[in-house]
Amino acid sequence: MDAENRLILNCGGVRHETYKTTLKKIPATRLSRLTEALGNYDPVLNEYFFDRHPGVFAQILNYYRTGKLHYPTDVCGPLFEEELEYWGLDANQVEPCCWMTYTQVRSGHYTSIQQSFVPNKIRGLRAFPNALFPLAIIPFFKKSIFPELG
Amino acid sequence: MDAENRLILNCGGVRHETYKTTLKKIPATRLSRLTEALGNYDPVLNEYFFDRHPGVFAQILNYYRTGKLHYPTDVCGPLFEEELEYWGLDANQVEPCCWMTYTQVRSGHYTSIQQSFVPNKIRGLRAFPNALFPLAIIPFFKKSIFPELG
Amino acid sequence: MDAENRLILNCGGVRHETYKTTLKKIPATRLSRLTEALGNYDPVLNEYFFDRHPGVFAQILNYYRTGKLHYPTDVCGPLFEEELEYWGLDANQVEPCCWMTYTQVRSGHYTSIQQSFVPNKIRGLRAFPNALFPLAIIPFFKKSIFPELG
Amino acid sequence: MDAENRLILNCGGVRHETYKTTLKKIPATRLSRLTEALGNYDPVLNEYFFDRHPGVFAQILNYYRTGKLHYPTDVCGPLFEEELEYWGLDANQVEPCCWMTYTQVRSGHYTSIQQSFVPNKIRGLRAFPNALFPLAIIPFFKKSIFPELG
Repeated sequence: MDAENRLILNCGGVRHETYKTTLKKIPATRLSRLTEALGNYDPVLNEYFFDRHPGVFAQILNYYRTGKLHYPTDVCGPLFEEELEYWGLDANQVEPCCWMTYTQVRSGHYTSIQQSFVPNKIRGLRAFPNALFPLAIIPFFKKSIFPELG
Repeated sequence: MDAENRLILNCGGVRHETYKTTLKKIPATRLSRLTEALGNYDPVLNEYFFDRHPGVFAQILNYYRTGKLHYPTDVCGPLFEEELEYWGLDANQVEPCCWMTYTQVRSGHYTSIQQSFVPNKIRGLRAFPNALFPLAIIPFFKKSIFPELG
Repeated sequence: MDAENRLILNCGGVRHETYKTTLKKIPATRLSRLTEALGNYDPVLNEYFFDRHPGVFAQILNYYRTGKLHYPTDVCGPLFEEELEYWGLDANQVEPCCWMTYTQVRSGHYTSIQQSFVPNKIRGLRAFPNALFPLAIIPFFKKSIFPELG
Repeated sequence: MDAENRLILNCGGVRHETYKTTLKKIPATRLSRLTEALGNYDPVLNEYFFDRHPGVFAQILNYYRTGKLHYPTDVCGPLFEEELEYWGLDANQVEPCCWMTYTQVRSGHYTSIQQSFVPNKIRGLRAFPNALFPLAIIPFFKKSIFPELG
């Protein structure tokens, strides 16, 4: 039962596998609309080919698997956002822990710091990005690291 | 002898291999309890399939191989902790060098900074996270970088 | 039609796939000049072999796919620049968001901070590296994190 | 000629390939001493199996390929150093650009900051870690980012 529901996505040469039902979780996106009639479907290998970054794609698929959009930290924000755009995904859905990596670069520069930084879906939210947390906590530990400097 | 003891774990399309004995090292977890009777076992390919993040899984398996839980730094803490939960692993076992990446996000916000930050198993320990070390050492080098600014 | 245009690049054991037309996008480089007469072409497997870092190569190919050169952040700048040199690519083409990772290490030390940091192609440009943005925005949020400290 | 000299290293399930001559570049290490008589050699698949981290191994092999030891930044220093030890490599050979990631954790804590930080081979050297460079250069740009704040 399991095997029939499986699907191979050859992304830049690296084979990713998931369930067909997983791809339906985020509707109206490139991956939710795959059909074997597409030009990039290979009936012999029974896979879809995409000429895209294979490593970043793991993070794209993870969004379908878990329902949460996290940014990878091994590539810069703009690169990931270009991939999100290709896959038809909404960068505004990024989780709070990844706000720091989120950047709006549509116009090539930052028009307004406050506005560009916070994604639409989370305006007014009181949660704070986890990514900042390590920086914030340093003062608390300072004394215990270098007591002789304190 | 070696080959019989081997096992293939297809995680999101990427084949990982390890020894069966390696998976027994951390008992009462999803991977230590694998049996061929499971629905995700494929007798033809002789492998287990999991619809999860293939890259992060390398770090999960490394915990079994080395007995030490290190966080990857190419994904954010909450993403990794969701994977830990899926695999039935205890985030509290994280090594001191990875404390900075460790975050407790169960309630969606930080109730108490001091309490949430330090994992249970290491409370009261005097060792200090390696991740902070680079930040701490900067002042020592400052003079040798920009002597003209000193 | 699709399959004929495809090409397999075995980089350090990991198979990457792309379109032949993709490799023509950046002319006069190692990848744009591939021919089956080369010693590293394998007619049986129909692939080219390169004894190079397989992970970093995803970022190299992404440059051909998107036309934008982004630095990976899972390896240090000098390592990536050595790969760029091998593939005959110009490190000066790096996107503004990755300037922070860009380093000129030809002489083994920094002769001039201002000059070595900014790539030739972007001198005088007013855009600012996204990578700095997170650091710059911290003060705005400081009060809302630790109101009791403010 | 090329194919005979090739070698497959199955590291945790991921096949890495390199030239036999590449592995001879760093003598007296686990990889330079491989022979088909070893228990982990598979004559059918013509490969060697190692139950280790597949991603980190790309960085290990890169040391053999380029002669330069760079630390990956997607895993913490201690994890990488445990891999270096397994492969019989000397962490002291790390390049200056990766000093920040280099940590001596043999005794479980830092006995002396100045001593533990700088690898033996580079004591007294005047070059400065590239990793610190981004932090150092921030003040120079500060004015051009937020002229209204200056």
